Amino acid sequence: MENHEDCVFCKIVNGEIPSAKVYEDEFVYAFLDLSQVTKGHTLVIPKTHTKNIYETPAEVAKEFFARVPKIANAIKKTYQPIGMNLLNNNEPPADQSVFHLHMHLIPRYGEGDGYSSNWTVHEKDYTTDDLQKIAAEISNNVAE
Amino acid sequence: MENHEDCVFCKIVNGEIPSAKVYEDEFVYAFLDLSQVTKGHTLVIPKTHTKNIYETPAEVAKEFFARVPKIANAIKKTYQPIGMNLLNNNEPPADQSVFHLHMHLIPRYGEGDGYSSNWTVHEKDYTTDDLQKIAAEISNNVAE
Repeated sequence: MENHEDCVFCKIVNGEIPSAKVYEDEFVYAFLDLSQVTKGHTLVIPKTHTKNIYETPAEVAKEFFARVPKIANAIKKTYQPIGMNLLNNNEPPADQSVFHLHMHLIPRYGEGDGYSSNWTVHEKDYTTDDLQKIAAEISNNVAE
Repeated sequence: MENHEDCVFCKIVNGEIPSAKVYEDEFVYAFLDLSQVTKGHTLVIPKTHTKNIYETPAEVAKEFFARVPKIANAIKKTYQPIGMNLLNNNEPPADQSVFHLHMHLIPRYGEGDGYSSNWTVHEKDYTTDDLQKIAAEISNNVAE
């Protein structure tokens, strides 16, 4: 397991910093987010240190996300939320504040529960051709 | 591959409904979200039909998320966003509108770009003991 000396989440995994642990196995560690945006708000992290989604090897991504459904189901069973958002933030302008990949599991209990997304639909700004061009540009940059 | 007759995303995978395709392989299909909340806003879906995170088998979750880093990197390489949010919505109160598991990849370009999260920190509402109790309750419900 690779660790980064100054990484708060690696210290949580190692037990150097206490946490409210929800789940642990060979590959992942899950614990409550102190901010408890909603009750049961949990973070799932890979034990392998990786800064963000860009730097996460496929093998780490795989084992990491494989555990998310069962942790989501445990939160659902415990508190019967009416929905759940999974959120992963990469780089500070997207609200990443700890630089060890983590997925927020945010159970939802209704409006005003502590979490929501703002998004502006820009559908009318793009023609079908524009979209095909954007898709082709991105597609050309997918690594083998 | 399991398909649901009335699922819009299964129809996109099958080519019955056109899409701006970013990536496709044996396990996943990625295409532009028509809403283009920000430029390059992409959806990654497993080809296997699964309604939401709760109903996703670990094997499907694994292969699905394994492809997300390379698609995120392709978007980054193409448009040089300054951050990226990954968002997965489950059930209508959490903004799910198509009932086939999907991960939004939302490149970020700065404030006012079309996307942001609202969240209210409830850290002061919980003692350390409260958090340990919540974590234990969820932990007890994690299936083997």
